[in-house]
Amino acid sequence: MTRHYNFCAGPAALPVAVLERARNELLDFQGRGLSVMEMSHRSDEFVAIADRAEADLRHLLGIPSNYKVLFLQGGASMQFAMLPMNLLGQGGSANFIQTGIWGKKALSEAQRLGFDCHVAASSEANGHTAVPDENALAISRDAAYLHYTSNETIGGLEFDYTPRVQRADGVDVPLVCDMSSNILSGPIDVAQFGVIYAGAQKNIGPAGLTLVAIRDDLLGKASGVIPSLFDYQMLADAGSMVNTPPTFAWYLAGLVFQWLKDDIGGLEVMDSINQRKAQKLYAAIDASDFYTNPIASRNRSRMNVPFVLADSSLDSVFLQEADEAGLLNLKGHRSVGGMRASLYNAVPEEAVDALTAFMADFEQRRG
Amino acid sequence: MTRHYNFCAGPAALPVAVLERARNELLDFQGRGLSVMEMSHRSDEFVAIADRAEADLRHLLGIPSNYKVLFLQGGASMQFAMLPMNLLGQGGSANFIQTGIWGKKALSEAQRLGFDCHVAASSEANGHTAVPDENALAISRDAAYLHYTSNETIGGLEFDYTPRVQRADGVDVPLVCDMSSNILSGPIDVAQFGVIYAGAQKNIGPAGLTLVAIRDDLLGKASGVIPSLFDYQMLADAGSMVNTPPTFAWYLAGLVFQWLKDDIGGLEVMDSINQRKAQKLYAAIDASDFYTNPIASRNRSRMNVPFVLADSSLDSVFLQEADEAGLLNLKGHRSVGGMRASLYNAVPEEAVDALTAFMADFEQRRG
Repeated sequence: MTRHYNFCAGPAALPVAVLERARNELLDFQGRGLSVMEMSHRSDEFVAIADRAEADLRHLLGIPSNYKVLFLQGGASMQFAMLPMNLLGQGGSANFIQTGIWGKKALSEAQRLGFDCHVAASSEANGHTAVPDENALAISRDAAYLHYTSNETIGGLEFDYTPRVQRADGVDVPLVCDMSSNILSGPIDVAQFGVIYAGAQKNIGPAGLTLVAIRDDLLGKASGVIPSLFDYQMLADAGSMVNTPPTFAWYLAGLVFQWLKDDIGGLEVMDSINQRKAQKLYAAIDASDFYTNPIASRNRSRMNVPFVLADSSLDSVFLQEADEAGLLNLKGHRSVGGMRASLYNAVPEEAVDALTAFMADFEQRRG
Repeated sequence: MTRHYNFCAGPAALPVAVLERARNELLDFQGRGLSVMEMSHRSDEFVAIADRAEADLRHLLGIPSNYKVLFLQGGASMQFAMLPMNLLGQGGSANFIQTGIWGKKALSEAQRLGFDCHVAASSEANGHTAVPDENALAISRDAAYLHYTSNETIGGLEFDYTPRVQRADGVDVPLVCDMSSNILSGPIDVAQFGVIYAGAQKNIGPAGLTLVAIRDDLLGKASGVIPSLFDYQMLADAGSMVNTPPTFAWYLAGLVFQWLKDDIGGLEVMDSINQRKAQKLYAAIDASDFYTNPIASRNRSRMNVPFVLADSSLDSVFLQEADEAGLLNLKGHRSVGGMRASLYNAVPEEAVDALTAFMADFEQRRG
């Protein structure tokens, strides 16, 4: 068996310890004579798996008891529709901070569905290389919530602050945050948010699972005519089991949470590892004229590091040689080109060391 | 490692050969140094996996080229909303044949969303023990489609015919069929249907994947204001990759299709195995006064066999002793009680033999 270093932006690397445990019990879960995949979601065994996953996630993130945690399907993109359909049922507008492609998609879907939308701030003028200042946020008078993307996976742009937002009339505006690509990368203060959501396929588990944490005063605000599986209140009331949930993905997410707690030692430790990994790679980029990253230093993503070569005609050679050296999936997103190294939790520090060594060697030979 | 016989109604048993192959390549897919779970859904490797799964499914079911095949999330219950939202965008009503709990849920969701619905026939009067006669179907004048559930998983009631439906004005009404619990159990003539759909967690793969086959003239009929991920046309145009699909479930479904083709030898063979399994169990039930199944013989499900004991106070002893004998998950659905043995494709004939032997022994000791 070979394991290479995998810098894929998502579906992304998973911890080896998690994959090994899943492999070892794939045909027989703890002597019960069947796979987790083959269990009823309402069986005692699976309910215990599901409950433990939620408890571990609550522990890791410090999720307060007045938040529901939902394990859903459809990816973050499904949330782009579910959020306005659930939170604007009693009127008002959705406000957005635009810092890249994923935030744009969230805005577009809400607009497409006919909801009132307002752009409170945008980094478009600087090419999405720096997050707007907090004091530049212009919230609309009727803002029902403010949506932003804490880390733009494609652009490699990460917020260095959590917006605090009040409307002109002094009302606190619930903060809704797409954390798909930086959730669990370090501690956060959940109480600052109304809704946090994330597709699983970066820092949580396999594709096909979406996590939502929602403050309970935001439940039950949908108009009556949305699909049952879109209704946060119905989903919360059913413990995310209105119908059969993605049981195996839920189980794997639980193994990742256990790994974060027990093997890593929690999110403070994970945070310092992630800081170190990112600093090493940005240092290598900055030390060279051959590699460039355009993002303002305070907003450089710890999770997704895009960079370009001084000579883009060398891109394909770089990617091919990297692949042959066991450094996989460094190609930038098809919409922007260049390179991108995603340094999610499961990407070990050795992978970054191997990448920076390869980059130095490549520059020496080809630069 | 222990493997027991698993009669779970879903998530259900998977073929051992499929689980073994998944286990063997879980950390390293074909020497590429990463798991299928860790691959970009747009990588060459995953696209090949996805394409092969679709091609094998098309081959197994004989899906004509004018049908799109979609690999989606959300389960059959998501389709209960997607179907009317996609097919009634230009008016008309949804017609339903009601034969049990799942058909009722499909109807209720369409009603809940405010669509015009019409019950064309129902077996409620006979307690859902016999499917309505084909000549009893009363289609509405404005029927845009007719929905039915070819196998009711909870009641154990299976259609023994495929409805052919014309409106009073001679227009052919597209047939929409929820095949969640009997798809791939034997050959079907796909050309008789407008839409076929199925949650994966019975005969296809793990929970979290839903298959839809839709005739292409039914695409593009949604009203403009449905969520992007609900729109069959958008999903078809994107090859089911509007956003990240459930890649690992898709891969496992592909392994199940390969197993059906290569190990089993196709759906005709699978059909005769399934017939034999069901006949053995129903024969054991009918040969005894201790066990009873209420379904009309022509509509007895080959996949889900509910039965009750003459003395229901023995239910818990039956279930406990069965479990100890390695016969798992025989408890009936919480809404109906009693027992249920699900005999999906991956449940081997030996499992049925072991079950009938246990039943005879239990009756002798306790009956």
